[in-house]
Amino acid sequence: MTIKEIQKNLKKDKINARLFTLGNMFIGEDILPSENQILELTGFTGSSAILLVTQTKAYLFVDGRYEIQDKKQINLRQIEIVKTTELSFEKWLVKNFAKNPISINYNPWVISINTLNGLQKILKSAKFIPLKSPETLLSADKVKTITHQKKFNSLTSKDKISYVVKHIKNHNLDAYLITSASNSSWLLNLRSNALPYTPILRAYVLVEKTGAYKIFAENTDLNNALPFAELKNYLGKYQTIGADFTTTPEILQSYTSNLLHFNDCIDELKAVKTPTEIKSIINAHLKDGVALTKFMFWLSKNYKHKTEIDVAEKLHSFRQKELNFHSESFATIAGYGPNSAIVHYCADEKTKRTLKKGSVLLLDSGGQYFDGTTDVTRTISIGEPSADMIEKNTIVLKSHIALATAIFPKDTKGCELDLIARQPLFKLGLNYNHGTGHGVGYFSNVHEGPHRISINAKNSAPLKAGMITSIEPGYYKENAFGIRIENLYYVKQTKNPKYLEFEVLTLAPLDKKLINKYLLSDDEIKWIDSYHSMVFAKLKKYLSKQELEWLKASCSPL
Amino acid sequence: MTIKEIQKNLKKDKINARLFTLGNMFIGEDILPSENQILELTGFTGSSAILLVTQTKAYLFVDGRYEIQDKKQINLRQIEIVKTTELSFEKWLVKNFAKNPISINYNPWVISINTLNGLQKILKSAKFIPLKSPETLLSADKVKTITHQKKFNSLTSKDKISYVVKHIKNHNLDAYLITSASNSSWLLNLRSNALPYTPILRAYVLVEKTGAYKIFAENTDLNNALPFAELKNYLGKYQTIGADFTTTPEILQSYTSNLLHFNDCIDELKAVKTPTEIKSIINAHLKDGVALTKFMFWLSKNYKHKTEIDVAEKLHSFRQKELNFHSESFATIAGYGPNSAIVHYCADEKTKRTLKKGSVLLLDSGGQYFDGTTDVTRTISIGEPSADMIEKNTIVLKSHIALATAIFPKDTKGCELDLIARQPLFKLGLNYNHGTGHGVGYFSNVHEGPHRISINAKNSAPLKAGMITSIEPGYYKENAFGIRIENLYYVKQTKNPKYLEFEVLTLAPLDKKLINKYLLSDDEIKWIDSYHSMVFAKLKKYLSKQELEWLKASCSPL
Repeated sequence: MTIKEIQKNLKKDKINARLFTLGNMFIGEDILPSENQILELTGFTGSSAILLVTQTKAYLFVDGRYEIQDKKQINLRQIEIVKTTELSFEKWLVKNFAKNPISINYNPWVISINTLNGLQKILKSAKFIPLKSPETLLSADKVKTITHQKKFNSLTSKDKISYVVKHIKNHNLDAYLITSASNSSWLLNLRSNALPYTPILRAYVLVEKTGAYKIFAENTDLNNALPFAELKNYLGKYQTIGADFTTTPEILQSYTSNLLHFNDCIDELKAVKTPTEIKSIINAHLKDGVALTKFMFWLSKNYKHKTEIDVAEKLHSFRQKELNFHSESFATIAGYGPNSAIVHYCADEKTKRTLKKGSVLLLDSGGQYFDGTTDVTRTISIGEPSADMIEKNTIVLKSHIALATAIFPKDTKGCELDLIARQPLFKLGLNYNHGTGHGVGYFSNVHEGPHRISINAKNSAPLKAGMITSIEPGYYKENAFGIRIENLYYVKQTKNPKYLEFEVLTLAPLDKKLINKYLLSDDEIKWIDSYHSMVFAKLKKYLSKQELEWLKASCSPL
Repeated sequence: MTIKEIQKNLKKDKINARLFTLGNMFIGEDILPSENQILELTGFTGSSAILLVTQTKAYLFVDGRYEIQDKKQINLRQIEIVKTTELSFEKWLVKNFAKNPISINYNPWVISINTLNGLQKILKSAKFIPLKSPETLLSADKVKTITHQKKFNSLTSKDKISYVVKHIKNHNLDAYLITSASNSSWLLNLRSNALPYTPILRAYVLVEKTGAYKIFAENTDLNNALPFAELKNYLGKYQTIGADFTTTPEILQSYTSNLLHFNDCIDELKAVKTPTEIKSIINAHLKDGVALTKFMFWLSKNYKHKTEIDVAEKLHSFRQKELNFHSESFATIAGYGPNSAIVHYCADEKTKRTLKKGSVLLLDSGGQYFDGTTDVTRTISIGEPSADMIEKNTIVLKSHIALATAIFPKDTKGCELDLIARQPLFKLGLNYNHGTGHGVGYFSNVHEGPHRISINAKNSAPLKAGMITSIEPGYYKENAFGIRIENLYYVKQTKNPKYLEFEVLTLAPLDKKLINKYLLSDDEIKWIDSYHSMVFAKLKKYLSKQELEWLKASCSPL
C-alpha cells in the first residue's frame, strides 16, 4: 500500500481523506513493525503519530519527541509534517476543515470509541465513514503464551478476577470487556512472545458478574481462546456491558448497543505494585545494575572502533546472562555525539556512528525479567567531555535530584510535580521536549499508566504508594549532543502517612566526569555521594576484581 | 435570631434542617459583620464557614485555616465543629443524610445556582426548600459611591463594556447579568464605602448586546440605579441571558427560565492588569513600603507595653499619611507570641497580648490606595528570638524564595506550582494549612480570582502575564509561635516569551535576626541580599535620617 494508491481510492470512492492512527485492535499498545501502517506509508519509525491522507496531500502529525528525528526519516516532498507541540491534531482539523464538510475514511478496529466521538464532536459537519472490510491489523504469526509463574505473583488470576467482579457489581453491570492486552495479561497471569520487547498476551477478556470469563485471542497456543469474530455473538448475550472506551475499538459498537463506558479498574490495580512485587522488582533492578555496570566497565576499556549497534548488542549480552531475563524492554537507544540529541533515537546501518573521544553516549535501555521490568538511561562520556557537556549534564542531574527528593501529599498528580524537575533547567533558559516520568509495568509494558509525570498530563491518575515511575529529565542540543539521566523509583509513604516520596530502584553509577560539583549544592552532592555509596554496596559482590575497582572509583565521593 | 429559635421553627414547619452559607446576595464576596448570620448565631468570626442547624443539633463546617482559631470562639456544647480539611461538607452530608430523605431550608438569595444544583445532585433524595420571604441580607446603611478616576485607569467604562458586549455576541446571548460586585465595580469604574476594607460598589449590572446597560443597587447615591425588585421585570425582557451560576443567587431562576451559565468574562479581564495599572500598582507598593518601614523602625524603638491593637493602629496611622490612601485592605492581623500561630487572627480586647522580648510578631496587613491594593506579611522578632523561631523562619523564607524564583510555561496553573513552595518545609516534615498565593485586585478585593496558588485549587485559572499573586508560605506551632512571609508579585514573561516568572512588588525588609544563613544556599543568600539592596535603594529617599540608618542596617548583606 502506498500513499498514491490510497489517494487513488479516495478519488474513486469520492471520499475526502483517510485517517491512520498508529496501532492495531489493541489501541494505544505496542505493535509489531509489520502491523504499522504509518511506518509502511511514510517510513516514520516513532511510536506516536497520526497520518491524514487527502486526495492530494498527506500530513503526518508528530509530537515534540520526534522533532529532530522526523526530518531525517520522512520524504518531505510527499508528506507535510505537523508538530503537535505547536498545533494539536484536533486544532489543525478545526482550522482546516471546520468550515467545509468533509468525509473521512477510518478503520473502526484501530480507533477507540472515545477518539472517534471526540473527533465527531470537534468536526460536527464531518462524516466519518468506516472502511468496508476493516482488519484488526494483528499479525498472523503464531504466538507462544508464557505463564507468569506463581512464585513471581502475589495474586492468583482468581484473586484478580474477583476484583473485576466487584467492579462489575459496583456498577450494576452484567459483564465487563477488557480490551487492553496489558490488562488481560495481568488478569490472567499470562504473557506471550508476540512482541519483541513487551511480553504481553494480546487478548480480550469478557468477565461475567458470576466470575466466569471468556478469552478472545487468535494465533495462540491457548486451547480455551475464542476468535475475535465470536465477540459479536458473546456481546449480544448481555444487557449491560462495561468497557473502557479509550481502548475499545469503535467497531464493537456496531456489534451491540449495550456497551457502557467505565474506566478499566485494572489500570490502577496493576499500577499499584504489591509489597511482594516490589521485592521482586528490587531484585530485578539489582541484576540489571550488575549487567549495566559490567557493560560500563567493558565500554571504558573497549569503546574504540565500536559502533552504536555494537554497544547495544554488548549490553544485551550482559543482560542475557542474568537470572530470569526474558528480553530487552525496548529497543536500546544508543546515540553517540549528535545522535545523542535525538530523544528516541534508534541506530541502524545508515545512521550508526562509531564511538570516539570527545563526546557522549546516551544509553537508554532496559530489561524484561520475570521478576521485573527495568528502564535506565545513563549519559556516558567517551574521552574528555566539553565544558558545555559537563555543565548541561550537571544541570540535568540537578533536575533529576530535585524531583527524586520531592515530598508530596497523597493524591498529588504528576502534572503537579513536573515543574519541580524543570526548575534548574528553566533558570538557564533550557528545557526538554518530553515528559519527566512514566509508569512501568511488572514483567509487562515499560510504559504503563494510569499515572505520568508531565505538565501536559492534566488528567493522569494521582500517585499512590506502590506505583513505579521513571524520573528522566534531559537536555538536547540539535546536531551536537544530548543528555538524559533516568532512574526508576517506587512511590512510598513518608513517616507521616499523609505524604509520599520516591525510593530509588535503579542501581548504576552516574558518570562523574560529566559532573561539575561547583554547580551543585551541598544537599545535591550529598545525594549523589549517598546514591553512589549504595550502588557500590549493593553491586560489589557480583563483580570481578577489575570491575569492582572500576566501580569503586566511579562511586567514590565527589 | 438564635439557634434555639431556628430549631423551634424547624420543628413547627416540620423541616429537618436549615442551611446557612456565609454571605449575602453578593455570593462569595466580602460582607459586613451585620450581614453575617453565622457570626450572629455562632460567634465565629472567620471568613469562610457553613452552618447547618437541625432540629436538635448545629454543625459548623470550617476549613484548615481556622482549626486553631475556632476552638477559642465557639460554644462547643451547642455547636459541633467539622473540619472540612478532614471531611468536606459535601461528603459529610452524604455520610449523614444520603440514606434518609431530608428537607433543608435555605435562603435563595445567598446560595448560588451552582451550589444548590451541586447539593441536589449529591443528595438526590433531599428536598431543598427556599425560605418563604428571603432577604438579600444586604445592609440598609447608606452607601457613598466613589468614582475611580480616569488618571488611575487605562480603560474607560465604555471600553470595558465593549468587552462584555463581545462576550455576549460570541455566545449568541441577548444580555449578560453581572452578579459579582467586584466585576460590576471594575466595569463601571465605580467604587463605594459600603465595606470597611474592600472599596467595591455592591451592584448588579445587566448589559444588553447593544451595549445599553442597567445598574441594580440599593441605598446608594446613584441616580440611575434600579432596586433589586426590578430584576424580575428586566430579566423577563430577554430570551437568553448569560450569568455566572457560581455567583448568581438561586432566586433569580424563579424570576426567569432564560438564564444560561457562562463564566463571567470580567474575572480574567480584571485579573490581568494593564501595563498602566502595573505602573500604578508599583507606585502604591512604594508608598506602602515606606509606611511599613517607618512603622518597623518605630516598633524597634517603642514595642514596650504596646498591645497587638496598639501596633495595628500605629501601622494604620503610617499608611494614612501616604498619598491616595483610602483604607486598609483587610483587618490587620497582628499576632504576638502564641497568637501569631493563629493563621487569621484578629486581636480584640479579650485576646490581645502585650509585646515583650522573646517572641515574634506576625504582622499581615495591607492598604487600599486609589492606585493599588497591597498585602504584605512580615514576621518580626521582639528581643532575641529562639533557635526554633530562627530555624522555622529560615525554612519558610526558603519556601518563599523557591516559588518567587520559579519559572514556568504559559498556561501553568497555581496547583502546578504550589508544591515548589512547600518542598523546603516538607523535607523537615512541616507544612502550612492554607494556600500559597491568591490574586489581588486593583483598588478592589485583596483576594481576587480567578487564579490561586494552591494544591487544592485544581480548577483555578492558568497564570497569565499581568496577573498579581501573593506568595505567602508559613509555619504555625499551636500555642507557641507562627511565621508567615508574604510578598506580592506580578507575573511577567521571561526573555523567552513561552515562559513566565514573578516580579516582586512588595518593598519591606525581612527580619535578619530571624535568618540563619547557614541553612541557606548561596543562591538563596544572593536573593535575600539583592532583594534588600533593592528595598533600600527604592525607599531611602522617603525616610528620616534615623529611619534610613535603621533600614540600612536591616538591608545590609547577610
